[in-house]
Amino acid sequence: MQKYLSNVVKVGPYKLGGKNPVRVQSMCNTNTRDMTATVAQILKLEKAGCEIIRVAVPDMAAAKALGKIKKRIHIPLVADIHFDYKLAIEAAEQGVDKIRINPGNIGSDENVKKVVTVCKKKKIPIRIGINGGSLEKDILRKYKGKVTAAGMVESAIRHIRILEKHNFRNILISLKASDIERTVEAYRMLAKKVDYPLHIGVTEAGTTFRGTIMSSIGLGILLYEGIGATLRVSLTADPVEELKVAWEILKSLKLRKKGVTVTSCPTCGRTQIDLISLAKKVEEAVEFMDKDIHIAVMGCVVNGPGEAREADIGVAGGNGAGAIFRKGKVIKSVKEKEILAALLAEVDKLK
Amino acid sequence: MQKYLSNVVKVGPYKLGGKNPVRVQSMCNTNTRDMTATVAQILKLEKAGCEIIRVAVPDMAAAKALGKIKKRIHIPLVADIHFDYKLAIEAAEQGVDKIRINPGNIGSDENVKKVVTVCKKKKIPIRIGINGGSLEKDILRKYKGKVTAAGMVESAIRHIRILEKHNFRNILISLKASDIERTVEAYRMLAKKVDYPLHIGVTEAGTTFRGTIMSSIGLGILLYEGIGATLRVSLTADPVEELKVAWEILKSLKLRKKGVTVTSCPTCGRTQIDLISLAKKVEEAVEFMDKDIHIAVMGCVVNGPGEAREADIGVAGGNGAGAIFRKGKVIKSVKEKEILAALLAEVDKLK
Repeated sequence: MQKYLSNVVKVGPYKLGGKNPVRVQSMCNTNTRDMTATVAQILKLEKAGCEIIRVAVPDMAAAKALGKIKKRIHIPLVADIHFDYKLAIEAAEQGVDKIRINPGNIGSDENVKKVVTVCKKKKIPIRIGINGGSLEKDILRKYKGKVTAAGMVESAIRHIRILEKHNFRNILISLKASDIERTVEAYRMLAKKVDYPLHIGVTEAGTTFRGTIMSSIGLGILLYEGIGATLRVSLTADPVEELKVAWEILKSLKLRKKGVTVTSCPTCGRTQIDLISLAKKVEEAVEFMDKDIHIAVMGCVVNGPGEAREADIGVAGGNGAGAIFRKGKVIKSVKEKEILAALLAEVDKLK
Repeated sequence: MQKYLSNVVKVGPYKLGGKNPVRVQSMCNTNTRDMTATVAQILKLEKAGCEIIRVAVPDMAAAKALGKIKKRIHIPLVADIHFDYKLAIEAAEQGVDKIRINPGNIGSDENVKKVVTVCKKKKIPIRIGINGGSLEKDILRKYKGKVTAAGMVESAIRHIRILEKHNFRNILISLKASDIERTVEAYRMLAKKVDYPLHIGVTEAGTTFRGTIMSSIGLGILLYEGIGATLRVSLTADPVEELKVAWEILKSLKLRKKGVTVTSCPTCGRTQIDLISLAKKVEEAVEFMDKDIHIAVMGCVVNGPGEAREADIGVAGGNGAGAIFRKGKVIKSVKEKEILAALLAEVDKLK
């Protein structure tokens, strides 16, 4: 299958699209006017791996807070705006790195021109954000009241043409629906029609449990096809959770590397060591380790050694004992209670 | 994209493959010889939605326990066997519903014939289970020591041909690797060569957090293409967790229905009610409810009403209040502290 290859736009220091790394973003759930709370949350999210942060800009007080917020953070800042072009202009003047606004919803072509002019001057892109829950009424009517992938794409193209008419092509697009099929089909359809970088996400995905699975499937299918210059995992939870899930999706697909990867087998009737507890302890011990290595924690000798051979460090459990592997070679056998320490000692020696 | 459509085999009362429902399975991590522990775990897994259960059969004592285990459970029982054809014969005689064994690994054609004969007599299928960690040495050599999707498929075809030579076609196949790409590519490749039902899974996926994401992506990609007659989510965790994840994957893709679906939006600076807490409470309240309905919990009026309209019951939050929707119509507005009760009262009225 041919992978989607978009053109490239810049958001702050990052190039998005093309063959550039897929960037992880999130959105604050603080009141943007409350600068202290907003900056505190962004600094926390930066630590959790957030690379681009978006804030809601519901009014002029929020817009006017953006410059001060930006000075106190270290990642690109995106202003999320609905309907009011004046907020977009103020946000751009405040120095944000990207505006999310739908040009068809801001009243007039004159207003669009003003927004485009300031974005050109400031060299910042606009993200058109189509959401299944807020499609234009005439498009909904055309599709018999149903939110369809085709309707979402039609809405996106309409907004894109408005910007292109003003000779503005510094654009990203998102097409979020609350189910996987419409999300996937809408992005696939749009990817055939345009070559703008795509911001991907499944919206209203739910609580951490459900949202993690919905987002993993939906974004996983798209990323596997090359669709997605940047992603946001939407969870009804602390945004820190969104970042953990986003990074794990990218690591699972080997699109980004961040920290240590631990694979471990499901246990079965052949397992003779306490593998669940061992795998958890290994995962906890390496959680914040800044090394790009792969550890395999395997319970038995059937698939264990084969799998562990592919890892940088591995253990294959036996009867109350474990064989420690390093770069494909058994380096020692240790008693069960010594496995964790032996594994971590080997990890320490790497890089 | 054309979806894979396999032929159909029977496992106990279930038809697997074709357009039949994708069945959820798991594997015991008890010692199979310990009947009490094994039966207790299976009964617990049945309650968690397990539809087919596999147990490891490492020796004759385990094989001889299978008949008694089967009598005390209510779902099809699968015997997982490596290398020893006598265990397969005993398992079949004990009345299991499926055997997992790789016919190329059981010593001789004579042994294969004996296994095939008893499986034909008992009308039970054989699953060929290819695992990236235990590929044949000559295939590994051919692919320069690397575990590749092509090598896994070659191994599968070799085992399939052995059974077909004995005129046995009551077959399922799995091709599990520990990363998404090899798993997906192997299944896609095999799906072009055979029409047997496929048992899907990503093996050694890891702890609950990582394994949930790996499995959601890998199995999600395959299921979206029609690949997967039955699935197992492998987690280094209590098998109950595997079932929760497996069901949520199938529900997310609308392939199966089980219980209430709750969608909820990520919160943002526009949210004026305590949505995270509300969504969690709703999810908890409906967790074991046996209704096939969709509840939307939305924080604001931008996308809220549009999304909530598509749900059976929904709420769109406003300033300390919520508008309750039912089948597309606003039925009332309530204060924030009354939203949960109002939503659940409406849920009660459905079906």
